[in-house]
Amino acid sequence: MTTASICTIGDEILIGQIVDTNSAMISRELGKAGVRVSEMLSVGDDGREISRVIEEGLRKNDIVIVTGGLGPTKDDITKSVLYRLSGSTGYVTDNRQLEIIHDLLTSRGLDVLETNRRQAEVPDRCSVIPNRLGTAPVMVMRFPEEKYGHTATVYSLPGVPFEAAGAMKDIISDIRSAYSLSEIHHKTIMTYGIAESALSEKIAGWESALPSYVRLAYLPDPLKGVTLRLSVYGASDDAETVFSTETEKLKKILGDAVYAENETTLQQVVGELLRKKGMTISTAESCTGGLVASLLTSVPGASDYFLGSVVSYAYSVKENVLGVSPDIIGGYGAVSPECAAAMADGVRRLTGSDFAVSTTGNAGPAASENKDVGLVWVGISSEYGTQTMDFHFHNDRIRNRERFAASALDAVRKYILYQ
Amino acid sequence: MTTASICTIGDEILIGQIVDTNSAMISRELGKAGVRVSEMLSVGDDGREISRVIEEGLRKNDIVIVTGGLGPTKDDITKSVLYRLSGSTGYVTDNRQLEIIHDLLTSRGLDVLETNRRQAEVPDRCSVIPNRLGTAPVMVMRFPEEKYGHTATVYSLPGVPFEAAGAMKDIISDIRSAYSLSEIHHKTIMTYGIAESALSEKIAGWESALPSYVRLAYLPDPLKGVTLRLSVYGASDDAETVFSTETEKLKKILGDAVYAENETTLQQVVGELLRKKGMTISTAESCTGGLVASLLTSVPGASDYFLGSVVSYAYSVKENVLGVSPDIIGGYGAVSPECAAAMADGVRRLTGSDFAVSTTGNAGPAASENKDVGLVWVGISSEYGTQTMDFHFHNDRIRNRERFAASALDAVRKYILYQ
Repeated sequence: MTTASICTIGDEILIGQIVDTNSAMISRELGKAGVRVSEMLSVGDDGREISRVIEEGLRKNDIVIVTGGLGPTKDDITKSVLYRLSGSTGYVTDNRQLEIIHDLLTSRGLDVLETNRRQAEVPDRCSVIPNRLGTAPVMVMRFPEEKYGHTATVYSLPGVPFEAAGAMKDIISDIRSAYSLSEIHHKTIMTYGIAESALSEKIAGWESALPSYVRLAYLPDPLKGVTLRLSVYGASDDAETVFSTETEKLKKILGDAVYAENETTLQQVVGELLRKKGMTISTAESCTGGLVASLLTSVPGASDYFLGSVVSYAYSVKENVLGVSPDIIGGYGAVSPECAAAMADGVRRLTGSDFAVSTTGNAGPAASENKDVGLVWVGISSEYGTQTMDFHFHNDRIRNRERFAASALDAVRKYILYQ
Repeated sequence: MTTASICTIGDEILIGQIVDTNSAMISRELGKAGVRVSEMLSVGDDGREISRVIEEGLRKNDIVIVTGGLGPTKDDITKSVLYRLSGSTGYVTDNRQLEIIHDLLTSRGLDVLETNRRQAEVPDRCSVIPNRLGTAPVMVMRFPEEKYGHTATVYSLPGVPFEAAGAMKDIISDIRSAYSLSEIHHKTIMTYGIAESALSEKIAGWESALPSYVRLAYLPDPLKGVTLRLSVYGASDDAETVFSTETEKLKKILGDAVYAENETTLQQVVGELLRKKGMTISTAESCTGGLVASLLTSVPGASDYFLGSVVSYAYSVKENVLGVSPDIIGGYGAVSPECAAAMADGVRRLTGSDFAVSTTGNAGPAASENKDVGLVWVGISSEYGTQTMDFHFHNDRIRNRERFAASALDAVRKYILYQ
């Protein structure tokens, strides 16, 4: 099986100032094409270390993918490492990349600076895959079999995540042309509302009965719930059949906790349900501060079903904009089922949407109104009436807000399903 | 200098299904304490690979920190690797952790399952740091100097990010008790509104004149702008003096593009400015869909200055809730300075806030109203009048929305600064 090592370069990663999201993206793309990632590494802006991990990576793997260390600023030294490793004897300007640099910068009204121009220069033993989304090109360094006992290739990508993502298609084509790839099969089942350990007990019998060549992983995420992933490595004629049989069994056990059978978000599922019904939604948010609306509108085309939201952080906005009665806030508090219901009804009236969902809770760090940190009330309003429900979480502010928002989306999903 | 290697365990990371955020968090904490992270690695749920990277890590570093692979479900195998590496001869139950497991689960109304109980069992040669936030304890394995030529310690943390974060304080104490730590000095300067390459040209002279022992890094981020980081490694009496001299020089060159001198977000800076002035804000959002409000309310205590928001995605909500005249939308379109101004004025009137900021733009993927993808109009309204400004970006939908929101926050910052 063709394997790869992913190396991320940058002091900013090693000191923890930025989180490396490129490795996950690259790994997903390689996996889809049938390349197995055997390890991921991050090292600092240190030429010797970069050389070492590339060379070690090539001894153990067919492919090494390097990201980062190609920006226009002086802390980037990856290019000189590739120069030395490839045995280059000079730099050459890649005219396709130079043209892209020119077009990109002038379209933004920027001057083409000497530092930009220099980014089109590459070591003469490297070939180039132009980067259409940014100034630093992808460099490809291929070694003959003698050197590492197998065809060994280094791809060097820019560190800017959307540029790295944009380059992957060309890199996968290049890999396909140089290696004969085997297969990996994955099946993803998305669940919401059951904690990982409870889920594990619930499906223990099913899990033990899985065919031995099928691997199962639990992937918990605050916004997505627990994702279950089935994997079959290597060529398999019946992987898809096994996946669909096992998914059916799982759905019998878990019922409506299963919200999708592929990498999908709750906001996409809710959006699709609304689109199918030809119905619209609005949100009224207190503790989530606009996060539910932001998630719903992160989906392209959300304007087909999402009308708008009122973030009613202050009591005055709850009362004056949403029409929540001061008696409710005075009598029950803002974190109450009565307030959640009035907020949902209020925003539905205001926007004229078919459905409305509200959140009012206490994300922390400090408790308010003597209500627990981690408590949220969700209200759902439609022409059929108004429902409220409470959820309890035990995390920090950021994470509680995410769980509140996801619980609200999941409540909407179930409400629409049973209309 | 005391060094560490950070190893993240899990197939879900290697296949790219989740992004590893623990390594960055751990690295920041180690760095603050004076431990240098020399590398980060991720390997799959494979006992041999986990053993290999831990042992290689211990040969090269004083400390190896392992995260993940300790969950209650069957795909986690880190504990058995530690059993073997530590030469344990049995498992013992840690009663402090067992008590925590019991308290945590019963407080959530959950049963204590056998899988939960088993999480308190640790290899008998490991010591335990209790994990107060979750069920899996932190395990500590310390080897005598003979084995690796230096005191070598493995810390094994749970993979759940907030549990891992919660354990770091105790781990740092343990490291301080076993190693004499040297120092790392960092100074962070946050800038917004100047792209990385232009910034680099602008400060090239200053950068060349930096003392040779001061390292500079550029850390671009869509929500934070470009962070500049100065670093001095090793003991230094004058690091703070050098940092403050250099920061002053930098501020003369960059002016109000510098918004903070430590790790701070734009939403925190805007919040502090509002708090100091005793003034309030509201937002009216179209393309950002609640993201500006969500960022502002992610800061604890935001209720002191944030009143609320109207997300006016549909024309009808712009008109009926915010009072934007249909003539504006008909005549200029929703993505226009006229609409941005009317939205900001409208939400200020509605909520009674001192300031209001609005966004209306086109995040993509498809163009609308014949306006460019990546164009956003920001409106700011206060008693002194209403301003609008446009920004142009060239990214995907998610990234454009982030840049739109950050630009709106930065516009508010500058507006308040010059009031």
